[in-house]
Amino acid sequence: MAKKTSARKNGRAKLDLRVVILAGGSGTRFWPLSRQQNPKQYLKIISEKSLIEETVNRLRGLVPPSRIYTIAVAGQTRILRRLLPRLPAKNFLVEPEARNTAPSLLLATATMYLKNPEAVVIALPADHFIKEVMDFRRKLILAAEAAWKFKKIVMFGIPPMSPATAYGYIHVTREKRQEIDGEEFYQVRGFREKPDLPTALEFIQSGEYYWNSGIFLWRADTFAEHLRDYAPELFSAWIKLLPALRRNDRREIRRLFLEIPSLSIDYALIEKIYGSLMSPGDFGWSDLGSWSALYDYLPEDEDCNVARGRLVSQESRNCLVFNPGKLTALIGVENLIVVNAGDALLVCRRDQDQKVRELVERLKREGPEYL
Amino acid sequence: MAKKTSARKNGRAKLDLRVVILAGGSGTRFWPLSRQQNPKQYLKIISEKSLIEETVNRLRGLVPPSRIYTIAVAGQTRILRRLLPRLPAKNFLVEPEARNTAPSLLLATATMYLKNPEAVVIALPADHFIKEVMDFRRKLILAAEAAWKFKKIVMFGIPPMSPATAYGYIHVTREKRQEIDGEEFYQVRGFREKPDLPTALEFIQSGEYYWNSGIFLWRADTFAEHLRDYAPELFSAWIKLLPALRRNDRREIRRLFLEIPSLSIDYALIEKIYGSLMSPGDFGWSDLGSWSALYDYLPEDEDCNVARGRLVSQESRNCLVFNPGKLTALIGVENLIVVNAGDALLVCRRDQDQKVRELVERLKREGPEYL
Repeated sequence: MAKKTSARKNGRAKLDLRVVILAGGSGTRFWPLSRQQNPKQYLKIISEKSLIEETVNRLRGLVPPSRIYTIAVAGQTRILRRLLPRLPAKNFLVEPEARNTAPSLLLATATMYLKNPEAVVIALPADHFIKEVMDFRRKLILAAEAAWKFKKIVMFGIPPMSPATAYGYIHVTREKRQEIDGEEFYQVRGFREKPDLPTALEFIQSGEYYWNSGIFLWRADTFAEHLRDYAPELFSAWIKLLPALRRNDRREIRRLFLEIPSLSIDYALIEKIYGSLMSPGDFGWSDLGSWSALYDYLPEDEDCNVARGRLVSQESRNCLVFNPGKLTALIGVENLIVVNAGDALLVCRRDQDQKVRELVERLKREGPEYL
Repeated sequence: MAKKTSARKNGRAKLDLRVVILAGGSGTRFWPLSRQQNPKQYLKIISEKSLIEETVNRLRGLVPPSRIYTIAVAGQTRILRRLLPRLPAKNFLVEPEARNTAPSLLLATATMYLKNPEAVVIALPADHFIKEVMDFRRKLILAAEAAWKFKKIVMFGIPPMSPATAYGYIHVTREKRQEIDGEEFYQVRGFREKPDLPTALEFIQSGEYYWNSGIFLWRADTFAEHLRDYAPELFSAWIKLLPALRRNDRREIRRLFLEIPSLSIDYALIEKIYGSLMSPGDFGWSDLGSWSALYDYLPEDEDCNVARGRLVSQESRNCLVFNPGKLTALIGVENLIVVNAGDALLVCRRDQDQKVRELVERLKREGPEYL
């Protein structure tokens, strides 16, 4: 059991930070690299390390490995332990079944609550990219302090770089805000899922809308109170989960877990809450939603080509090549995504990479051995 | 020793056909598939068989394996024997050193001459493609008969399909011709190497020019006489080669071989001869000079894509994919050549495949391990 502490040290609260990395995802947009058995968070797409390793490394010196947890189905534990050997074995939390984020985060937060109700839980997606790590770390610490101090759910909203229609947006009231060490936390006014293009353009122009990054912070006790006030049906599961977790009654934990609707935490809880806080996450965030997102974040050569693996190009520009450990030669081509992944090769126009999903759908019928 | 025979049987000469396959080539235009250790003739680019196997298979029933020879440097013998197990071991003729076609064909023809001076030697490149095999076989037999009967060198000229500037052209006089079984053999007037485009256009319009296919036929004794009359410096090597070959004096053979200038047989002999014959080779010939030539000769799907290996394409047209045994997915691309060859991958605009040679030159400096 962690020691409960709320004493301020050097004028700052000594926080009990507990990170939960949501490691259960199974994306298909990085096909042919991502496969059913090798989802995105395990891919080494931005460096020699997998995205989940990068996510943990980003916390170095901020949160000790003993307080970093993952949550995923049991089948993932072996690969997680191999990738993250510094985390204690008990920190690989197991979902009884692959479901959405609400059941996972209820289970994880209840686990933390038993250790310390005042612990600040940081829920991190496993497979995002953050370019400006130092900015991220500074903001994360201040956000944790805000979550602890104001007893609110704190989230990062990304200043939108385009009128994206694939993201959820957070609507804030700039006039209502809190502040810690000069860092501002705007009060959340509402949420909007995947707007159409004209709406997204309005959002951008208003300056009041941010992309929902999926990064949330809350005190465990705040989370419980919010469940009670805004999602009573989840709160009853929570109430029963605590003693089951204390007894480590796996059967009961499983039963309660499956009772919780398979919804996102956004939909099941956060969007219902009044008065949450949002910190503008201007730290070069990307959810790496597709191959072309990778193009935007990896360094490019003088012909604006981006490559993992050795590239020799002649009169070729604006291409993303992913072929680690091998040579790729480009002659006279532009705006292509080229991905070589063992038994499957993808060549795709860069502005059509959203169609990789359609292709994966087609392969479910025509070539499931490649999924 | 083969039995000498010139008797006509069923009104047709019973010919002693001896095929020599020039197997010593080392092309780079099929990089990354072709490598120094794996030149074009060994590649399985048009079928599950290598080009040299296809070349031999094309002769089935026409020339028995006992009369099919290859000529290449000693280092190639092992792979040749593996690919062509039906040929007797002694038929893998060895060049003392890799040189041009004149020394090779002198050596090979002298070898045949010792077996039968009236043997008709058919010199075949190892790495060409012929679509209409039945037409080729019929014409080949008649060309052999013409070579035997008229004691001329006979060659196939390909009716030009474009004003190609990369080929040599054969200029014929249509008025002067021979005939066998209705098949016409035009008298050769001259040769023109790689003309410029306006000249090539004139050639095509005149109807008197054909592409030089590199397929030649001659009686061994005719060859010797032509050497004597048109290339006396080669004839003196020939005169000395015969006894050295009879004694199997390898050192002397090597010495004489290296004395012969490293020139093409075209340049060293054939272009000097007056009165050779040319048969129009309208049997779907291609020298497979580059990847895009392959596109022209392999069957295409409904989107005009041509693939070796499994292809799944979305909104993609006119592409050549070479990725045998693996899956290739194309999304929104056109007119590409995609070749996956183990440690190296090529993506090239289809109309720029001649630049593969430049790329190979660059790799000599920047990545010789990929050659």
